[in-house]
Amino acid sequence: MNAIILSIGDELVLGQTVDTNSAWLSQQLASVGCAVRSHITVGDDQRAIEEAMDESVGRCDFLVVTGGIGPTADDLTRQALAAVMNVPLELNESWLASVKEFFKQRGRTMPESNSIQAMIPRGARILLNQNGTAAGIDADYISGDQKTVCRVFVMPGVPSEMKAMFARDVLPVIRQASAGAVILSRTLHTFGVGESAVAEMLGEQMMRSRNPSVGTTVSNGIVSLRVNARFDSRERAAEELERAVEACRGKLGDLIFGSDDVTLQQAVAERLAASRTTVTTAESCTGGLLAKMLTDVPGSSDYFKTGFITYANEAKYERLGVSMEMLNVYGAVSEHVVSAMARNARRLAKADYALAISGIAGPSGGSESKPVGTVCIALAFPPLPPGEGRGEGARKGQESSVAARTFLFPGDRAWVRDRSAKMALTMLRFHLLNKPLPF
Amino acid sequence: MNAIILSIGDELVLGQTVDTNSAWLSQQLASVGCAVRSHITVGDDQRAIEEAMDESVGRCDFLVVTGGIGPTADDLTRQALAAVMNVPLELNESWLASVKEFFKQRGRTMPESNSIQAMIPRGARILLNQNGTAAGIDADYISGDQKTVCRVFVMPGVPSEMKAMFARDVLPVIRQASAGAVILSRTLHTFGVGESAVAEMLGEQMMRSRNPSVGTTVSNGIVSLRVNARFDSRERAAEELERAVEACRGKLGDLIFGSDDVTLQQAVAERLAASRTTVTTAESCTGGLLAKMLTDVPGSSDYFKTGFITYANEAKYERLGVSMEMLNVYGAVSEHVVSAMARNARRLAKADYALAISGIAGPSGGSESKPVGTVCIALAFPPLPPGEGRGEGARKGQESSVAARTFLFPGDRAWVRDRSAKMALTMLRFHLLNKPLPF
Repeated sequence: MNAIILSIGDELVLGQTVDTNSAWLSQQLASVGCAVRSHITVGDDQRAIEEAMDESVGRCDFLVVTGGIGPTADDLTRQALAAVMNVPLELNESWLASVKEFFKQRGRTMPESNSIQAMIPRGARILLNQNGTAAGIDADYISGDQKTVCRVFVMPGVPSEMKAMFARDVLPVIRQASAGAVILSRTLHTFGVGESAVAEMLGEQMMRSRNPSVGTTVSNGIVSLRVNARFDSRERAAEELERAVEACRGKLGDLIFGSDDVTLQQAVAERLAASRTTVTTAESCTGGLLAKMLTDVPGSSDYFKTGFITYANEAKYERLGVSMEMLNVYGAVSEHVVSAMARNARRLAKADYALAISGIAGPSGGSESKPVGTVCIALAFPPLPPGEGRGEGARKGQESSVAARTFLFPGDRAWVRDRSAKMALTMLRFHLLNKPLPF
Repeated sequence: MNAIILSIGDELVLGQTVDTNSAWLSQQLASVGCAVRSHITVGDDQRAIEEAMDESVGRCDFLVVTGGIGPTADDLTRQALAAVMNVPLELNESWLASVKEFFKQRGRTMPESNSIQAMIPRGARILLNQNGTAAGIDADYISGDQKTVCRVFVMPGVPSEMKAMFARDVLPVIRQASAGAVILSRTLHTFGVGESAVAEMLGEQMMRSRNPSVGTTVSNGIVSLRVNARFDSRERAAEELERAVEACRGKLGDLIFGSDDVTLQQAVAERLAASRTTVTTAESCTGGLLAKMLTDVPGSSDYFKTGFITYANEAKYERLGVSMEMLNVYGAVSEHVVSAMARNARRLAKADYALAISGIAGPSGGSESKPVGTVCIALAFPPLPPGEGRGEGARKGQESSVAARTFLFPGDRAWVRDRSAKMALTMLRFHLLNKPLPF
């Protein structure tokens, strides 16, 4: 079973609205094993709509259409569908009564223009709309030679109305038709290694012909693997999905920080919570971004109490006690300075860990030896793991061991700041795993 | 002149990623008078990509393709384009050298798989990618009978890389080709007042039939007016656009903080730079987000030196000297406490202004009297404007006047934090304008 999703609206082809319906519908269809061949978007133009419908009906089992069924002159989807089906539009009396009732309940009389919303192609069925006046349409397209059959669903473009209608009246039909076949997916997230390096580690796992299939995507520096398992039964799909996910984990190990909706900051938060430890931050070029990420997570007050933003050199001296001599000799962007920032922040905040970042985010400020994108990151941590002969003093801030690294991140100011904060989180994550940074 | 936008990626047809590129591209194309016929999305499937390309080239002057040019086996756009053009892929030595250099600068060797990224269809040209290894492609499709000619641009799916490439190398070509009918647009941004209230203030300005037209959109709490002027000549369009923009400014006044790409933080940064003043931050629930926003702007070191993140009560006491008595009596989320935070942060940082935020971002922590979304914000500022009889001591931190307000923001944790930081920036912006907050 497969489907094509057709979205209609000038606001979409003019780029004034981002089409989120198609992504939502694709997820829903995949969840019942119906593959989506393509998304098509056209404006409020009857010929364009007819053309798109005409070409789609021969290529899919289900054509899922959204938009263009409002009451105004630029809503032309029902007219286009009737033309493609080669049948007239007919008034559906019972829906007309519902629309009139809808207005009456709001103390108003139905404007004449709304009566078009009760017109559907002959032979089609109404899909009830419990949240508005635009009824949906459920129609069987059958070509003149009877060779092409496609079930067409038309729904409103308003996401809330569309979703309610789809869930109640469309999804059950498609689920039944695709009886059995299911696509189950899992997404695994990594940070720190490029897309091609991840692909190389995965090797044959990514071969195009495999099922489950494994593909990679990159978003804001996070390289994610999408594992899709397509099988006749949910049990089989679930089993094969797990097997493929395990195979990926075997190849990438701890590079994978989480799956599906888990963010890097959540992964770090979980480890901090599990070890009942706290972290503080000392930020220069990221200017609060790292602390913001750490506090994105609900309940972050358990592991994050305070942070330092020391953008100027004087602030590094006055707030964190980094000596002006060190700042002058090594420069603010140096492993010496970030190490001192981390060590002192850890002591001042009485935290178990401190992350410090200082770098050149750009666009200006770069030099030959320290180009834009140069970022130093340090992690201060207790000198010995808990329970190995040191008292609370050693754990909470007093004595620190420090690991510092220098990175060169590509991209613009926002990229450099984002990658810097994520790399700092990654350094802490590997430390909490008691493993060296793998890159 | 017209265009079709083709987006490629399994993550799109599976609904795992919402396609925002097509909307952005549509806006850009409309701005130079190039109508977008349709958007088409297909998965990482060479036959599907070829089919979509094959059908599109005969229907548009420009085919704008994004995605599928990464280094891995599921990136098939360049292969599909070569097949549709009926030419072989050839190695572009100069781009291969650039890719190798990209890796070398990062101290790594180019994985063999990346060399595919230097392959383009014979006769096509490279579109430079300054932010990654995926070069774009600029190709002329000419059908066997020479009747169909279409210029095809292929760009990466990663939005930042795509946008930079499109702006530099694609848009100028299309602009020149579409000389004549023009749509010129301006977007004006406001924060603090709801969309329907903005629409009410605009009144007849928003009537559907007008040209220039005015529409509103909302994104992350920013209510924006989009003004589109569509005329036969660029001069006329520019003139009418200015007139409509002025009319909107007349109705909304200082609620408008900027236009087009200007962010709220940039608007505030400009005012701080103009007055050569500095600001510091004292953040509880926003955990660094406000400072992050202030340092988003290049050159922010001129007005931002340091900030305080005091998430826990002890941090408010230890770092900012807010008395434990005040914290106990009024609670951390109170105008008393944020006022003290702002006053003390301003003194410690020796800044001209200090913004302090304390609130309940949720999901837990709310109560009957202070539900989730309750946020107190304070601005500490010099007691008298510069030049009115106070010395440097009064200006830089010593004596403060403080204005505090309590807000109730709707939405989830991320929303509440985002709106809180934006409201703090807005309080400072109106103070710098020497005007009361208009809501």
